[in-house]
Amino acid sequence: MELSREKYAADLSSIREAQVRINSFIHRTPVLTSESLNAISGRRLFFKCECFQKGGAFKFRGACNAVFSLGDDQAAKGVVTHSSGNHAAALSLAAKLRGIPAYIVVPKNAPKCKVENVIRYGGQVIWSEATMQSREITATKVLKETGAILVHPYNDERIISGQGTMALELFEQAPQLDAIIVPISGGGLISGVALAAKSINPSIRVFAAEPKGANDAAQSKAAGRIVTLPETNTIADGLRAFLGELTWPIVRDFVDDIITVDDMEIIEAMRLCYEVLKVAVEPSGCIGLAAVLSDSFRNNHAWKDHNQIGIILSGGNVDLGVVWDSLRK
Amino acid sequence: MELSREKYAADLSSIREAQVRINSFIHRTPVLTSESLNAISGRRLFFKCECFQKGGAFKFRGACNAVFSLGDDQAAKGVVTHSSGNHAAALSLAAKLRGIPAYIVVPKNAPKCKVENVIRYGGQVIWSEATMQSREITATKVLKETGAILVHPYNDERIISGQGTMALELFEQAPQLDAIIVPISGGGLISGVALAAKSINPSIRVFAAEPKGANDAAQSKAAGRIVTLPETNTIADGLRAFLGELTWPIVRDFVDDIITVDDMEIIEAMRLCYEVLKVAVEPSGCIGLAAVLSDSFRNNHAWKDHNQIGIILSGGNVDLGVVWDSLRK
Repeated sequence: MELSREKYAADLSSIREAQVRINSFIHRTPVLTSESLNAISGRRLFFKCECFQKGGAFKFRGACNAVFSLGDDQAAKGVVTHSSGNHAAALSLAAKLRGIPAYIVVPKNAPKCKVENVIRYGGQVIWSEATMQSREITATKVLKETGAILVHPYNDERIISGQGTMALELFEQAPQLDAIIVPISGGGLISGVALAAKSINPSIRVFAAEPKGANDAAQSKAAGRIVTLPETNTIADGLRAFLGELTWPIVRDFVDDIITVDDMEIIEAMRLCYEVLKVAVEPSGCIGLAAVLSDSFRNNHAWKDHNQIGIILSGGNVDLGVVWDSLRK
Repeated sequence: MELSREKYAADLSSIREAQVRINSFIHRTPVLTSESLNAISGRRLFFKCECFQKGGAFKFRGACNAVFSLGDDQAAKGVVTHSSGNHAAALSLAAKLRGIPAYIVVPKNAPKCKVENVIRYGGQVIWSEATMQSREITATKVLKETGAILVHPYNDERIISGQGTMALELFEQAPQLDAIIVPISGGGLISGVALAAKSINPSIRVFAAEPKGANDAAQSKAAGRIVTLPETNTIADGLRAFLGELTWPIVRDFVDDIITVDDMEIIEAMRLCYEVLKVAVEPSGCIGLAAVLSDSFRNNHAWKDHNQIGIILSGGNVDLGVVWDSLRK
């Protein structure tokens, strides 16, 4: 599969450019290992802790790349997004660093801590109804009124390149990896990671981890086209988006398999993150661990020789009450 | 103050020897920073995350140094300790790595997750009553029966040197520090840290953080002699021990001040660790953050120019139910 910029929304060059652009703003997040979790999984696991990224999630990489890619005149008018949370906080923080306004359309059912993060980072919250339609209408209205530019959470070349910088770091920190497991939602993170990873090491495997209650990416891969769902049902609130026209071709061509897990598996992985790894992740953030521990992955002979596995802990923004309520079940 | 081995139980040489001895066994734990916590505290904070250490706490450093200091004949008979938890797990793990038995006297009121850690790491649990007297009697019995050697949790030269290795790492990771805040209980950690830190940079300040409900170290400093308490009362179950004859002279001579905080301050610091830093700490582990946020520290003019502060997040072994119950109050 040729990996050219004509064909896909990003490539290794655009990801390396993003790294240069954002490097002084982001955290180089640590990679943690645990003998206990290696023993439980039967593999060697390398946890890339993007929950320690600024804003509490990998989203800051893409947001930062988008905001600092803008020309001065365009930047001055600000940026807009509608987002389930982590992208919103990340965009607010990136805009604050550049000294420009960020207008954040937030659905009324967004988790409290995610809204608080937006406000803490100086984003201007504009409420909408919970439907995607209401979010888009509200965002369009803000765009018209302010002249600001829309920064989509994932279906955006700058976002995909920014998220891909995580893979560049991870390869420096754990060059021995033969597989990476990445949460999938709209596909921005896994698109950037897959492009970077396969460019550097074509034999590496890139797996997506997806909730069974929002398995549109698995269905899309099976159908050979973007599938959307009438509704989603999962504790992993950050993984309910659907693939976009820029992320789909990359997921189609470079993601080796999609592992779906149910909410109980996500909750058990979350417990292990807190109790063993001592990392406070959100449900969406720990799905990679859930995937590597799932029967469908363990029993898949195609993957049995992949033993050095990078797992992206993608975010940590969660109301602790939600964590505890779910662990008690 | 001359820092000689004749006068104190450890020195920079013994700490450097410990580092060479244990380096291939321990995790080099990351240092995290947070602009949000810098803003809240009004200082620049550098969090040394020993909760990510093997066994979930800094204790593995000292335990590892002690176990690998033993001659083969002595080692073969095993090691014994009575401990409130983290030292016990750490000693079990170190003994397992050397392939020798670890006999762990555990009081019946020890937190469940700490006992589970001992068992997971292969330690042999021997129950005692909750009193220190019962723990010591039981340990003495085990010593006689097995010929194993006692490894005290803190009042031991090898333990103090091992814990001090954390400061060597921290200085490499954050050389700009002008102060370090360390939890104090029996004094093993802060003794090693203070000796290493003051040897490398005599002008650095070393502060102890202690619960008000177990403020024996603060009372000892004030009295000029070891003070013990008839009882302690704090959520920080790892910080209830009293100074020993080896740690006291070091605390007396090299710890610049002791900051006491109440349980509400500890709980608030724990919330910030989970929600902002995304690190799962135990109450004892986050007391350094509680100290730097306390009014007594903020309002102390003597420390107002200390702006680059290392904070030791010393451990993360806690039943999540305890965390959540305390955060709800």
